[in-house]
Amino acid sequence: VERQGLNELRARLDRLHPADVAYILEGLPLEDRLVAWDLVKAERDGEILLEVSDAVRETLIDSMDRHELVDAIESMEADEIADLAPDLPRDVVEEVRRQLNQQEREQLRAAMSYPEDSVGGRMYFDFVKVREDVTLEAVLRYLRQLEELPEHTDQVFVVDSHDQLCGALPIDRLLVNEPEVMVADAMLRDVLTLQAMDDVDDAAQAFERYDLVSAPVIDPHGRLVGRLTVAEVVDVIREQGDYGRLSQAGLREEEDIFASVWDSAKNRWLWLALNLCTAFFASRVIGAFEGTIERVAALAALMPIVAGIAGNSGNQTMTLVVRSLAFGQVTMANAWRLMLKEFAVAGLNGVVWGGVAGLVAWALYRDTVEGPLLGLTMSLAMMLNLLLGALIAMAVPLGLHRMGRDPAIGSSVLLTFSTDSMGFFIFLGLATLFFT
Amino acid sequence: VERQGLNELRARLDRLHPADVAYILEGLPLEDRLVAWDLVKAERDGEILLEVSDAVRETLIDSMDRHELVDAIESMEADEIADLAPDLPRDVVEEVRRQLNQQEREQLRAAMSYPEDSVGGRMYFDFVKVREDVTLEAVLRYLRQLEELPEHTDQVFVVDSHDQLCGALPIDRLLVNEPEVMVADAMLRDVLTLQAMDDVDDAAQAFERYDLVSAPVIDPHGRLVGRLTVAEVVDVIREQGDYGRLSQAGLREEEDIFASVWDSAKNRWLWLALNLCTAFFASRVIGAFEGTIERVAALAALMPIVAGIAGNSGNQTMTLVVRSLAFGQVTMANAWRLMLKEFAVAGLNGVVWGGVAGLVAWALYRDTVEGPLLGLTMSLAMMLNLLLGALIAMAVPLGLHRMGRDPAIGSSVLLTFSTDSMGFFIFLGLATLFFT
Repeated sequence: VERQGLNELRARLDRLHPADVAYILEGLPLEDRLVAWDLVKAERDGEILLEVSDAVRETLIDSMDRHELVDAIESMEADEIADLAPDLPRDVVEEVRRQLNQQEREQLRAAMSYPEDSVGGRMYFDFVKVREDVTLEAVLRYLRQLEELPEHTDQVFVVDSHDQLCGALPIDRLLVNEPEVMVADAMLRDVLTLQAMDDVDDAAQAFERYDLVSAPVIDPHGRLVGRLTVAEVVDVIREQGDYGRLSQAGLREEEDIFASVWDSAKNRWLWLALNLCTAFFASRVIGAFEGTIERVAALAALMPIVAGIAGNSGNQTMTLVVRSLAFGQVTMANAWRLMLKEFAVAGLNGVVWGGVAGLVAWALYRDTVEGPLLGLTMSLAMMLNLLLGALIAMAVPLGLHRMGRDPAIGSSVLLTFSTDSMGFFIFLGLATLFFT
Repeated sequence: VERQGLNELRARLDRLHPADVAYILEGLPLEDRLVAWDLVKAERDGEILLEVSDAVRETLIDSMDRHELVDAIESMEADEIADLAPDLPRDVVEEVRRQLNQQEREQLRAAMSYPEDSVGGRMYFDFVKVREDVTLEAVLRYLRQLEELPEHTDQVFVVDSHDQLCGALPIDRLLVNEPEVMVADAMLRDVLTLQAMDDVDDAAQAFERYDLVSAPVIDPHGRLVGRLTVAEVVDVIREQGDYGRLSQAGLREEEDIFASVWDSAKNRWLWLALNLCTAFFASRVIGAFEGTIERVAALAALMPIVAGIAGNSGNQTMTLVVRSLAFGQVTMANAWRLMLKEFAVAGLNGVVWGGVAGLVAWALYRDTVEGPLLGLTMSLAMMLNLLLGALIAMAVPLGLHRMGRDPAIGSSVLLTFSTDSMGFFIFLGLATLFFT
């Protein structure tokens, strides 16, 4: 019965799109995943490996022997092999490389030499190129011989005899113009062109802004070497969002949801260790005022509010600054205005929420002698800490950006560190002044 | 001189792509933005309004009089008008509507009736449709008459005499097949088809998974009504990422970076007010143990650590759960396994980091009589609070998801609330037991 079930499952997997098989594999616990993976036809292994997430791909590759891996990979395009190569055993890559022809080997070398976040690391090598001194009729005949066009071919590229890119002929121009028109007269000469070493995030912004489907990639000599397509750009944009969320929570990489406890814990420890250090630092700040707290224990109850709200407010400012930096909207010329505005917002928040918090604190401790002074301390400390939070929330991302670093990474831990430590210091410091 | 500068600026703006003009306008402070906006040729107003962000669009529309708005909008497609309509004065929309023909008016009505997050709210009305009983030659002739194809036309749709969708003819099949082949023989019958009421996020996942450029949209009767393209999908994916980040920081909407202080503050107040309430609740928990804190002031210094680390660790769990839910990887069948895994990770973190924190606390207070007991309290409380954080981090998003709500919204405030309040309660409660 078990075996019949497996046969049925195999038949169903065979009918699915490789991306759907990948999706199913990702949702299965490890042992079930490997059973299902064994059922997948060997000749589909490669395309499915390309579709699964990095974390799940590792588990699948670990379960395959060298021979199976070589079989799955040798039929791939050079750009696809380059995508998988970092996850593959070195000897498998070597064996596959030996079986490639000269041009493919050169492409694989090129693709593996580009960083993962460059256009070169994401481009495809399959594209259609034509000369400008032929008729559209000739282009149409040429395309008919190809039997199949590369995916996402919305334009064919026009090159000269040295493979220099001279322009592009969008498919719709090919279709709406008369067949006797020359390529030179129908083509676009002013085409958005990418360099292989360009940052792929910038390329993605260009695709988004100009609604592109594909763009030619050239080398430093102006020779056409590849093509970036919107399918890759969609992945890049999705990964950006994902990466932002993961790194904000201090996760170093995406996690297979059924990863082992040990692997999961390792993914999270750096962040927890870092936060434990900053928390102990803040704790020492409080420790310095233990004498004051012994006298007025209410301070201990109120101090987390001062730290917390400034952290929340600073986080709002930082989110907007990081976002504006990512879109290139913040320049040195307008950064000053932005800072003034954020300070004003923080000041307003300080007056309003500091006032509210002060009144509530006073009301809570109205029966004690310290009541009114507690409220005043609370209000003042919140105002100051909100301004400080705004300062950190702007200075840290702007500084990281200026140093050429990603402003989204590490900013939040520094912000919390500052609003906690300084919040405790300001609040307890003021209290020490007022109550002694 | 000033005027000459403006003329030059005008000439430069005229040469730019509308998306680039939009980008420049977004980066200018309000008064400069309106000066630049006045320089833009009136006939380009419409396309630029479509490109700018919602927040900036409002400022531009506010600066235009009714006549200018009608001029800018009346030449747009129905789907574009529908996109702008929510931001326009009602009488402008009415006047534009009166100038549309019957079919356009019907399209506008349809487009405005779909929710913004549905496929219908994002689809275009311009597409090419052909019949299946003609030759590819005839299709090519028909396309040639159109002079221009709708953007992102990677396939033409095949319909019957009742406008029912029967399939699609990808442009590359049109190109590689011989002209005498019939559409019926070259077309794909099994095409991914969207319903106008489908969720656009789900549609975006389909585009991403199957690398689509366009997809037909049908009404409940199977009639072809529109077309969704990858350009819209790219926007949807970008907005998802953006929205996630903004809502996580408690920002209700994107903000023009030069918005007024008042508008910015309003955007942030709900969140701050909410956090102030939860912070005061946590403060009351501490208040209940003021007697214990008076006796052992060191507790006040250590308690934020217990709350903070559990918050960090819970946030990691929650990020992974929310992400898995968004990708549809978590089902009721495997949720149980996921919970066991996350509990195990939290337990391991509790032993490791609780142990470390306990030892450090002991070391810090080694000269006091309470030292060893403080360390023990710290370790136990951290373990318990980490487990509690993991529980909340899983239960809240899973619960929201089950109730059909977006698990990304509101989860984090509940998590911090729990890890803070319960962290203080557990730590100070244990201390009260141990030290009295």
